[in-house]
Amino acid sequence: MKKNYLLTPGPTAVPPDVSLEMARPMIHHRTPVYMEVFKNVNDGLKKIFYTKNNVYVLTSSGTGAMEAAVVNLLSPGDTALVVNAGKFGERWGKLCEAYSINTIMINVEWGKAVNPEDIRKHLLENKQIKAVFTTLCETSTGVTTDIKTIGKIVKETEAILIVDAISGLGAEEFRTDDWNVDAAIAGSQKALMLPPGLAFIALSDKAWKLAEESKSPKFYYSLKKAKKSLVEEGQTPFTPAISLVIGLNKALNMIQEEGLENVITRHSKLGKAIREAAKVMGLELFAPGTPSNAVTPLKMPSGMDAGVLIKKLKSKYGVTIIGGQDHVKGKIIRIAHLGYMDLFDIIIVISAIEMALVEMGYKLELGKGVGAAQKVLME
Amino acid sequence: MKKNYLLTPGPTAVPPDVSLEMARPMIHHRTPVYMEVFKNVNDGLKKIFYTKNNVYVLTSSGTGAMEAAVVNLLSPGDTALVVNAGKFGERWGKLCEAYSINTIMINVEWGKAVNPEDIRKHLLENKQIKAVFTTLCETSTGVTTDIKTIGKIVKETEAILIVDAISGLGAEEFRTDDWNVDAAIAGSQKALMLPPGLAFIALSDKAWKLAEESKSPKFYYSLKKAKKSLVEEGQTPFTPAISLVIGLNKALNMIQEEGLENVITRHSKLGKAIREAAKVMGLELFAPGTPSNAVTPLKMPSGMDAGVLIKKLKSKYGVTIIGGQDHVKGKIIRIAHLGYMDLFDIIIVISAIEMALVEMGYKLELGKGVGAAQKVLME
Repeated sequence: MKKNYLLTPGPTAVPPDVSLEMARPMIHHRTPVYMEVFKNVNDGLKKIFYTKNNVYVLTSSGTGAMEAAVVNLLSPGDTALVVNAGKFGERWGKLCEAYSINTIMINVEWGKAVNPEDIRKHLLENKQIKAVFTTLCETSTGVTTDIKTIGKIVKETEAILIVDAISGLGAEEFRTDDWNVDAAIAGSQKALMLPPGLAFIALSDKAWKLAEESKSPKFYYSLKKAKKSLVEEGQTPFTPAISLVIGLNKALNMIQEEGLENVITRHSKLGKAIREAAKVMGLELFAPGTPSNAVTPLKMPSGMDAGVLIKKLKSKYGVTIIGGQDHVKGKIIRIAHLGYMDLFDIIIVISAIEMALVEMGYKLELGKGVGAAQKVLME
Repeated sequence: MKKNYLLTPGPTAVPPDVSLEMARPMIHHRTPVYMEVFKNVNDGLKKIFYTKNNVYVLTSSGTGAMEAAVVNLLSPGDTALVVNAGKFGERWGKLCEAYSINTIMINVEWGKAVNPEDIRKHLLENKQIKAVFTTLCETSTGVTTDIKTIGKIVKETEAILIVDAISGLGAEEFRTDDWNVDAAIAGSQKALMLPPGLAFIALSDKAWKLAEESKSPKFYYSLKKAKKSLVEEGQTPFTPAISLVIGLNKALNMIQEEGLENVITRHSKLGKAIREAAKVMGLELFAPGTPSNAVTPLKMPSGMDAGVLIKKLKSKYGVTIIGGQDHVKGKIIRIAHLGYMDLFDIIIVISAIEMALVEMGYKLELGKGVGAAQKVLME
């Protein structure tokens, strides 16, 4: 008998209560029962986004909502500033390119966060910039971006701020309205504890002004259609992923019950426990400066391959984590502490890594990493 | 105690075995376990599409796959011929318009099928036509289109044939390759017995040639990306709706077990039973000429409102069917016999309609409609 533990930054584990809710008999979406659920979901999403504006629910991966931001807010030939500090910042660049947006990239070394002053400099130098694209938590590097400061900078200009908060929302502190975020994007399969298949986007009034002018072609991702459907009928323009919306209702209720600030604190503590454990285990943090509450990348001891460790964790201990992408493939492991996780998920992953590393010939004292984590988790 | 019965043409009822499969603990998609499931799904989809080509799985509503067809196969300024025989044909027109395709519409009266010769005429008159868009089963009118004949006509030209088979696939006979369909599209929440959230598209070699030339902007719906990801890695380019894919694997296995031809025959018989019952109940068929195996629209007795009947069926009998859209709203009811349905679903809906109509003051002999249905169902 071997249990399975999923510690990846999306998908994340789905709480049994959410799974059971989604397993109930299918209902039609154009019915009062569904519309009541969908209304609750809309209210709950506003709370978790910290916004007074509507949060639109799309049936797609998170990338679909990123595409919705590009095609609804910009037009071909517009200029955008893109923070590229990892795979997901890079994706903003590719999306802008696909829709003929002139893209100015701020390339940031992997493991580092963008300096908000660099954004200010670009905005001062180039008044053509209509939008700044950035990432709350860059999943590929485990870096959290200082959106609050960036929001203050962008607010002073004509440009809008678009934030991919897909892996960050519900794990990191994030205030859409207070931080002057004009378009905030999230996905279902992260801190929202659902399977993948839903994506979310909230727009400010400043963003809606650009949406009114946008000439990019769109249909499925048209947020004007989404707004009309929501405001006039309490619906989505196309058949929604009904079971996932029903699960989301349950997940949002669970988050409200725990208290959103408590949820963030829990994530923060789990992340800190991993980092403290890593320290005593001699594993270096890949992004020590601006750690994430969602995912922690650790460098492998020199001469050891991340792939071997990941495989051993899975095959021998049933623990699933992931490695690095692109140029850090094989060099780092990434441990998610995201969504439906409590202290023992951290104990499990640390103890599994201890055992696997010892088996790989790495010298460490078993239980020492676990002890360091426990100290944080008991606080 | 009142049970609920869902007889709508999407979403359709989800078999408990599929729901249970989807309720199992979440797994990561970049793992051998998931990739094995996804391989089975790809094989199963090829069988149900009757194609040797790959069927690409998109995380979206069916409309997303329709958009994928437009943006991958055409370029702005291209000319397309669109069969508009209802809401979903109309959607092809709107999609083409959104992407600056010159659209020639063949407007067909609701409840009638397009005459394939009209398509031939247009293709002969206008050599600019690059694509013909049509619908296998027009859900809004309950009409089945003669795709086989249209396929023969389009095959003789440079144009490609694109078929929205969303509500038809698995219910109507449909042979992608044999019938010369260049792009076939389906969705999860119809005969495939899943919740909404997945859409599918298969392309012929002739279609891929156009895909290579297409200049329409795209990212999330890029089928080149989908092809590369599937061929090189056995994956999708973006995080898939994992739980739905796992459910699809189960549903496809169930269909294979029953036998695809038996599944079509079952749908055909259920539809015939509804039509025979309607006849003896004095309810006129809305689309008598080319009935559908998926959904049957019936005209309301004169002076009676469909909305009242639908509400009564739901509130008193727990039976959900839907009404007409646009100009036939209030005038017709639509009963789906689609997906996870057997003979008793038909008995239930007919007997419920009998009782509700009598309560509304309509004269009929209780059980007579049921009897007519039984006669067909016993065959």
